[in-house]
Amino acid sequence: MDFHARTKPMLPKLIFFFSGLANPGVINNSVGSVATGANVEKIPGLNTLGVSLARIDYAPGGLNPPHTHPRATEIIFVLDGELDVGFITTSNKLVSKSVKKGDVFVFPRGLVHFQKNNGDKSASVIAGFNSQLPGTQSIAATLFTSTPAVPDNVLTKTFQIGTKEVDKIKNKLAPKKT
Amino acid sequence: MDFHARTKPMLPKLIFFFSGLANPGVINNSVGSVATGANVEKIPGLNTLGVSLARIDYAPGGLNPPHTHPRATEIIFVLDGELDVGFITTSNKLVSKSVKKGDVFVFPRGLVHFQKNNGDKSASVIAGFNSQLPGTQSIAATLFTSTPAVPDNVLTKTFQIGTKEVDKIKNKLAPKKT
Amino acid sequence: MDFHARTKPMLPKLIFFFSGLANPGVINNSVGSVATGANVEKIPGLNTLGVSLARIDYAPGGLNPPHTHPRATEIIFVLDGELDVGFITTSNKLVSKSVKKGDVFVFPRGLVHFQKNNGDKSASVIAGFNSQLPGTQSIAATLFTSTPAVPDNVLTKTFQIGTKEVDKIKNKLAPKKT
Amino acid sequence: MDFHARTKPMLPKLIFFFSGLANPGVINNSVGSVATGANVEKIPGLNTLGVSLARIDYAPGGLNPPHTHPRATEIIFVLDGELDVGFITTSNKLVSKSVKKGDVFVFPRGLVHFQKNNGDKSASVIAGFNSQLPGTQSIAATLFTSTPAVPDNVLTKTFQIGTKEVDKIKNKLAPKKT
Amino acid sequence: MDFHARTKPMLPKLIFFFSGLANPGVINNSVGSVATGANVEKIPGLNTLGVSLARIDYAPGGLNPPHTHPRATEIIFVLDGELDVGFITTSNKLVSKSVKKGDVFVFPRGLVHFQKNNGDKSASVIAGFNSQLPGTQSIAATLFTSTPAVPDNVLTKTFQIGTKEVDKIKNKLAPKKT
Amino acid sequence: MDFHARTKPMLPKLIFFFSGLANPGVINNSVGSVATGANVEKIPGLNTLGVSLARIDYAPGGLNPPHTHPRATEIIFVLDGELDVGFITTSNKLVSKSVKKGDVFVFPRGLVHFQKNNGDKSASVIAGFNSQLPGTQSIAATLFTSTPAVPDNVLTKTFQIGTKEVDKIKNKLAPKKT
Repeated sequence: MDFHARTKPMLPKLIFFFSGLANPGVINNSVGSVATGANVEKIPGLNTLGVSLARIDYAPGGLNPPHTHPRATEIIFVLDGELDVGFITTSNKLVSKSVKKGDVFVFPRGLVHFQKNNGDKSASVIAGFNSQLPGTQSIAATLFTSTPAVPDNVLTKTFQIGTKEVDKIKNKLAPKKT
Repeated sequence: MDFHARTKPMLPKLIFFFSGLANPGVINNSVGSVATGANVEKIPGLNTLGVSLARIDYAPGGLNPPHTHPRATEIIFVLDGELDVGFITTSNKLVSKSVKKGDVFVFPRGLVHFQKNNGDKSASVIAGFNSQLPGTQSIAATLFTSTPAVPDNVLTKTFQIGTKEVDKIKNKLAPKKT
Repeated sequence: MDFHARTKPMLPKLIFFFSGLANPGVINNSVGSVATGANVEKIPGLNTLGVSLARIDYAPGGLNPPHTHPRATEIIFVLDGELDVGFITTSNKLVSKSVKKGDVFVFPRGLVHFQKNNGDKSASVIAGFNSQLPGTQSIAATLFTSTPAVPDNVLTKTFQIGTKEVDKIKNKLAPKKT
Repeated sequence: MDFHARTKPMLPKLIFFFSGLANPGVINNSVGSVATGANVEKIPGLNTLGVSLARIDYAPGGLNPPHTHPRATEIIFVLDGELDVGFITTSNKLVSKSVKKGDVFVFPRGLVHFQKNNGDKSASVIAGFNSQLPGTQSIAATLFTSTPAVPDNVLTKTFQIGTKEVDKIKNKLAPKKT
Repeated sequence: MDFHARTKPMLPKLIFFFSGLANPGVINNSVGSVATGANVEKIPGLNTLGVSLARIDYAPGGLNPPHTHPRATEIIFVLDGELDVGFITTSNKLVSKSVKKGDVFVFPRGLVHFQKNNGDKSASVIAGFNSQLPGTQSIAATLFTSTPAVPDNVLTKTFQIGTKEVDKIKNKLAPKKT
Repeated sequence: MDFHARTKPMLPKLIFFFSGLANPGVINNSVGSVATGANVEKIPGLNTLGVSLARIDYAPGGLNPPHTHPRATEIIFVLDGELDVGFITTSNKLVSKSVKKGDVFVFPRGLVHFQKNNGDKSASVIAGFNSQLPGTQSIAATLFTSTPAVPDNVLTKTFQIGTKEVDKIKNKLAPKKT
C-alpha cells in the first residue's frame, strides 16, 4: 500500500507518532551500547516515505561495534556525552572524528562504521536514515554468530587465524541463554 | 561530482562533520521560532547521499508557521519542551498531536505542516529529512513577502479579503529593516 | 501490482484510456476555476508509470489559487485564452509570466504556484505531471477549511491577524452546504 | 548542476517558458506527421525535473510511425481530429483504440507505439513524458537509415526478405537531399 | 512485498538460486538464436532488487534480431565464439563492434540493438540487466506478428512497401504451428 | 555529464567496450581469489546507466572473503568450477548453497557475502551489479588494514579478543611490501 492511497480516508494520528525513543535503551550486553529504531516497523505511516530515526545509547566505555546499514546513509546528532566515531571508505581509508554534544556526523550509505564512548559518562545520539527500514549488519555478529554458522574455513582464511581462535570468538560473541 | 568518485582520495573528515546545531538558534522574529539546517550547504560530504538534519528552536508561545519542504519527508525528535504539531493531507484532513521530550512525529513529503509551542518554556527538536537539501516554503511569507510580490488580485481572491487587509498582512509580515 | 506483471495477460485497452478531459469542467465555486485529473484513479493502467495529465478551466477573472503538488513537477500547455501564471522559489522569488494559447510553462516540484485569468474570456490548460497521483494542496483551503480545523492561534500568528479576521476568512472559504 | 542550487539566485523566467508549440509543425515528409518537443533542450529550467511535453501534428492520412521513447512513458491528449493509436506489449499483444478530440491515452515506458490519422482532416495531440529528455527511436529509420548502416545480413534475416527488398526500403526511407 | 519484509523469517535458499542457464538453449527458430532469462520469474528472491541475468545462444550464422529492453540497460560478456554487435542511438548513429570470447559490450537502456554470429561455430553470451524483469520487444515480431495485428496501413506507410510485401513478411515471421 | 547528452554526437564505440575480463586475473594473495571489475572506471559509456560486470577467479581452496557492495545487488553466473557461496541477512540467517558451472546465485544489496572454492581445481564467475560502480568493502581488510588504523579498543571489544591477537591478525592481513 502506498501513501497515495492513504491520504483519502481520515488518518489515525498514531501511525505517524512514536514515543519509544524517549528514554535511554537498556544496555545489557558485552559491547555496552544499544540501538532503538523508530522505523516503519514502529511507525506504520513511514511506509514508502523513505526516512526514519533511531536512538543509540552508550555506557561509559561502550561501543557500537563496526556495522553497516545496507539500505541507507546515516547522519547522527549527539544528544549527550562524547564519542569517537568513524567509517572506512571503499579505498580503505578511515575517516574518524571525536564528536561531542550537539555535533553532527555522516556515515555514507553501506560503509562500515562505529561509535566508541571513550569517556567516563554515558552518551547518546539521534540518528537519521534515508530509508524507512535501513537494516543493520553488525559485522562480528554476522560472521561469528549467524544461524547456520559461517563455515570455519571461511573464517580462518578471512582472519588468518586458527579454528581454536575462531571458536573462542564464537563463544565470546554467542548470545547469552536466559 | 558523485560520492563514487570521492571514495578514492583521502577524505578530509571535516566534510562529514558540522558543529552548528550544538546551541539553540537565536530567535529574533515575530513568530518565535528558528530553524538551523545541517544540510549539503553546511556539510559538503552529504552531496548525493539524500539525507540531512535540522534543529528547530521555539520560544515559549513560539510557532514554526505552516510550511512545506518540496523535496523531503520530515521526521522530528523532541529534544526539549512540548509542542502541538500537525500536517494537513491532500484530502484536507488535519493530523495533529501534542508531543513532548523524546517523542517522534512524521510530516509526509510536500505536505503543509506546523509546530506550536503552547507551553511556557522553550522547546527544541531535531528533524531528519530524506534529501540533502529539502528546501522550505513558509506559506505566509511565500504569499505575502516574495520579490516581486504576488499580485494583489491573486491574494484577495485566494483569501476572499480586501486589498486593505492584504496590505495589512504584508506590512506585518515584511522583513524588518535594520 | 507492477506493470511488469500486467504485460503477460491480454490487456483491456480501456485501462489506458480516459475521455473525461474532453469537455470543460463545470465551474461552480468562488475562485472561478476547476481542475479535472486524468491520473491513476481514472486510468488504472498508469499505475507505477509515474506520469499523468489534468485539465484546468478558468472563467473570465478566474483563479487557480496558490497550491502545491507534493509529489510532482507540473508543465502546462495553454489550450485557450490567456493567463498570468507564477511560482515562488524557496528563496522567496516570484517567477511569473503572461502566457497565451499554445505557450508552455513549468512549475517545479513542490513549489507554491497559481494561474490567474485576467482576460474577459474563458481559458483552459492541459497539465502534465511526473507522478501518476501528484496530489494537490490548495493553500487557503488547507489552512482555513481542514477537518479538524487548524488551531486559531496558529493562524493568527502565521498571518499576524486577529481571531475575528480568521473567522471571516473561514466563513468565506467554507464549502457551501447544499 | 541541480535545481536545488538554482533556487538561490533570481531566476530568469524564460528558462521555464516555451512558445514553440503554439503552431502546428510543418509536415514535409513521407509519413505525414511531425513531432515538436518542449524538453530540456528548449526549456533549460526542466533540468533534473523529470517531465516534458511535445506536440505532434498529423496530416490527413498521416502516420507517426512505430517508435519508442527509451526513457519515458507517454500520455497524450488529443487537441484536434481523430486517431487510431496503439502499443504492443512485451507479450506481443496489441493494445489499440480510436481516440478523438479531448481523449487521453497512455503508451507505457519503452514500448513500441504509433498513431495513425485515418480521417480526412488534420489532427494534433499534446504528449506528456516523465523525463526531461525522453528520446525517440523511430523503428524503420533506426533500422534502414542509420549511419553507418545496419548490416544487410541483419536486416534480411530479421524481416526474412532479400537484399533487393532491403535496398528498396532503404531508398524509400532515405532522408531527402536538399 | 518488499525484500525488507523478507529478511525476518528464515529464507529458503532456493529463491536466490537458478540452474536453468547451465546448458545452451535449444535453437529451433528461423533466426538461429535463443535467449533464456534468469529474472524474477525464475528467481523470486530478485524481487525489488533491480538486477537479473540472461544467457543467449547463437547457432553459426545466428542472429539475435533487433530488439529493445524497455526497462533496462544490458551489458554482455561473451562466453564463447565471436559476434558482431551493435546498437543505434536516438541520433540514428550505429555503434557496433566485433566481440570475441571474454569481451564485454554495453547496450544502453531502451535502445534498439542486435548480435549477429557471422562465424561458423556456435557462440553464447551472459547478459546482465539493471532490472529484475527487463522485458524484451523483438522489433520485427512486434510489428508483424502481434495479436491483434498492427494495421496494414501502418506497416505499409512505415516501411514504404505494399500490402503484398507486408503479407509476405508476416507469413515468414509467423510462429510455426505444431 | 548524462547519457542523454552523449547521444547527440557520434559515439566512439570503445567507450562501450572492454576486453579486460577475457583472461583469469592473476592471484597473488593469501586468500586465493581476485576480482576484476568491468565498471564505469573501465567503460566510460556505463556512466549513469546503473549496471556493470566483474569477473572473479578462485584458486583451488581460494576464498573471496566476506565483503559487501555498498551500492548494488550482485548476481553471479559460474563460468567454471564449483563454489560454496552464502550471504547473511539482517536477521543473522546464513543463506548458502553449493553452486557449479552454469548456476546462478543472488547476493542482495549491501549484505555481507562470500564465495569459497572447496574443490581442487580453479573456479571463476561472472557477476552482474545494478550500479556502474558498486564499490567493495572486504570486511577483514576494512577493520584490520585501513589507513589510519581502526583503534585497537574498537577491535578488541568487537571481537572480544586481546590486543595481542589483534596485532597478530593485523600482521597477517597487512599488504605485502614489494
